[in-house]
Amino acid sequence: MHIYVTGAATTKFGELWSASPRGLARQAVFGALKDAGLEAKRVQALFVGNMLSGMLGGQEHLGAFFAEELGLTVPAFKIEGACASGGLAVHNAVNSLLSGQYETVVVLGIEKMTDHKPEDVATALMGAGSEDERLAGATFPGLYAMIARAHMQQFGTTEEDMAAVAVKNHYHATLNPNAQFHAEITVEAVMKSSKIADPLKLLDCSPISDGAAAIVLSTKRSPHSVEVAASVVATDTLGLAQRKSLTQLAATKQAAQKAYTLAGILPEDVDASEVHDCFTIAEILAAEDLGFFAKGNAAAAIRKGKTTLGTSTGVVLNPSGGLKGCGHPVGATGVKQIAELVEQLRGNAGKRQVHDARVGLAHNVGGSGATAVIHILKT
Amino acid sequence: MHIYVTGAATTKFGELWSASPRGLARQAVFGALKDAGLEAKRVQALFVGNMLSGMLGGQEHLGAFFAEELGLTVPAFKIEGACASGGLAVHNAVNSLLSGQYETVVVLGIEKMTDHKPEDVATALMGAGSEDERLAGATFPGLYAMIARAHMQQFGTTEEDMAAVAVKNHYHATLNPNAQFHAEITVEAVMKSSKIADPLKLLDCSPISDGAAAIVLSTKRSPHSVEVAASVVATDTLGLAQRKSLTQLAATKQAAQKAYTLAGILPEDVDASEVHDCFTIAEILAAEDLGFFAKGNAAAAIRKGKTTLGTSTGVVLNPSGGLKGCGHPVGATGVKQIAELVEQLRGNAGKRQVHDARVGLAHNVGGSGATAVIHILKT
Repeated sequence: MHIYVTGAATTKFGELWSASPRGLARQAVFGALKDAGLEAKRVQALFVGNMLSGMLGGQEHLGAFFAEELGLTVPAFKIEGACASGGLAVHNAVNSLLSGQYETVVVLGIEKMTDHKPEDVATALMGAGSEDERLAGATFPGLYAMIARAHMQQFGTTEEDMAAVAVKNHYHATLNPNAQFHAEITVEAVMKSSKIADPLKLLDCSPISDGAAAIVLSTKRSPHSVEVAASVVATDTLGLAQRKSLTQLAATKQAAQKAYTLAGILPEDVDASEVHDCFTIAEILAAEDLGFFAKGNAAAAIRKGKTTLGTSTGVVLNPSGGLKGCGHPVGATGVKQIAELVEQLRGNAGKRQVHDARVGLAHNVGGSGATAVIHILKT
Repeated sequence: MHIYVTGAATTKFGELWSASPRGLARQAVFGALKDAGLEAKRVQALFVGNMLSGMLGGQEHLGAFFAEELGLTVPAFKIEGACASGGLAVHNAVNSLLSGQYETVVVLGIEKMTDHKPEDVATALMGAGSEDERLAGATFPGLYAMIARAHMQQFGTTEEDMAAVAVKNHYHATLNPNAQFHAEITVEAVMKSSKIADPLKLLDCSPISDGAAAIVLSTKRSPHSVEVAASVVATDTLGLAQRKSLTQLAATKQAAQKAYTLAGILPEDVDASEVHDCFTIAEILAAEDLGFFAKGNAAAAIRKGKTTLGTSTGVVLNPSGGLKGCGHPVGATGVKQIAELVEQLRGNAGKRQVHDARVGLAHNVGGSGATAVIHILKT
């Protein structure tokens, strides 16, 4: 049996003061249904990816909550795995279709973060980390700063290399109408931005965002559908201290290897990849762990433009602008990555179209790498 | 393909002041693995059912959290659907096996509630309800009290009828070593207990509890395994105000009808059923909505002992003691129900053994009926 994405939609990402979670969900889901040419009554189950609604808003039971809002009286589930919640929701949805239990389902990824005080959001986000780390007062910028330091020491990666990731992703975001940021930035601007957790500066970090994305998954191919060639999850320790290496995410490597085998492709076959650049260093790790570049070689390649739109060699990384440029409403991100790749593989991505894109890879991470989810999409 | 429960274990339920979530998880999962005769390294995925860890404890990402604690470096997911989180986790686990993605998985249901202030727990639990209800200050006892009033008005159900449910379930709990309560109670004691939300009194309400339960699910039969003959979820509106009827849970009826068809059985074929008696009136509704009794007839039947252990006619309801007698650690409940039925169908339930039990039905509800999960188990 094969699984297809038959519809996809993403809302504007950003500081959406006048938007409610209900409104965002309606826009994303009804957009995806319209894109699929599907009536709502044909939907058989709803999978919701969300992390923070309980901690920040006091609302859980989001499966039933959004099912009611959307007028879908179907089995509904909330899947949570920190910033990988969206990808995990897609994985469970794919399995539910392969099981024969359902034939057409919707996955909604959604997060509303900017209604809350930044310190509350930072505290809530540490719910993704290990008890040791969060009770010691660590934050995710701090954890990724340690990863960055280790990578700099081991491979000679520089702060300018990391800055180049942000520059590229902001450039891509200027071509994406739904992106949070539409301003190009320079390596100098990144280097001069406020230090958050040395060596990471403000412009190395993905923002706090609101937004939603939805996809329709089906066991039946349709004219504009894209095939899900692999859906794989891997897990590592929550905390950095328990890991063998700080300069790779073992979960990403493990999930990617299995996904390439399942899809029958090699890393060099991937034309466009949405990778989890919650911090600039994370994109460098991802580009290596996913096999696009040898360990230690990704930073230079990214800096030389080999992963920028218009490149003639290699894979375009984060054509949407990524978490850094497009925004990072955590539960939405994993679904938005797939929605972006669907547009790319259909050739509908407008100014940010990756030339002749036929294979896409979505890479969604929870915490500092405890969960990794890989989806490979094919035309 | 068929799916089997090959191992099951439940911790003690109750006010477990000296137990940690980590310890409860280890006890339940390693107990289930031992019961299945399975090495941990054979487990291919972990599904965690939990509702409150984020809101009460600040810890999310529980899939990876418990995978690390248990030494399982496998794909891990947290599934949340309020008090139906456990049942929904089992449903997604079953589908993941049917999909061919995994062959052996573990489902852990867990909740640690008594470490927190009761008012904080009550507030957090309303995360299961509709926005209208929770922002208006409703509580679940209040919502079920409205259901009880409607049932009393429509069918002549009495407060003593509801009390009889608690009396039965406390009696069953005295036969269950893991139950929270081991004291028999009387109808008079229930009637004299403090009013919580008229007509519901303290002894009509399930308690705040700590506990965990785990099951091993596999695509392969084993000597002591029990077959999962149906796994079905249905959804209704979150809020009571949007429902056509207050005296039935439409989601329960819909899920049950589909489950009976899938399992190829009738309600009268069920020997033992763990139903979601979060309040005594909820067991009366369940006994009717599951088709064990005609609408309006369950209360009298329960009061006459027709659902009590040792009955010669009909189904035994909540041999474990149910949520009322055994306890209700919300994320654990849906998994514990299945663990109890596995013991019953194996004939290993000791003093609370249902005579010649061959078919079991687990009924897990989220909120005031927005989510219903039915599992039918067969020897």
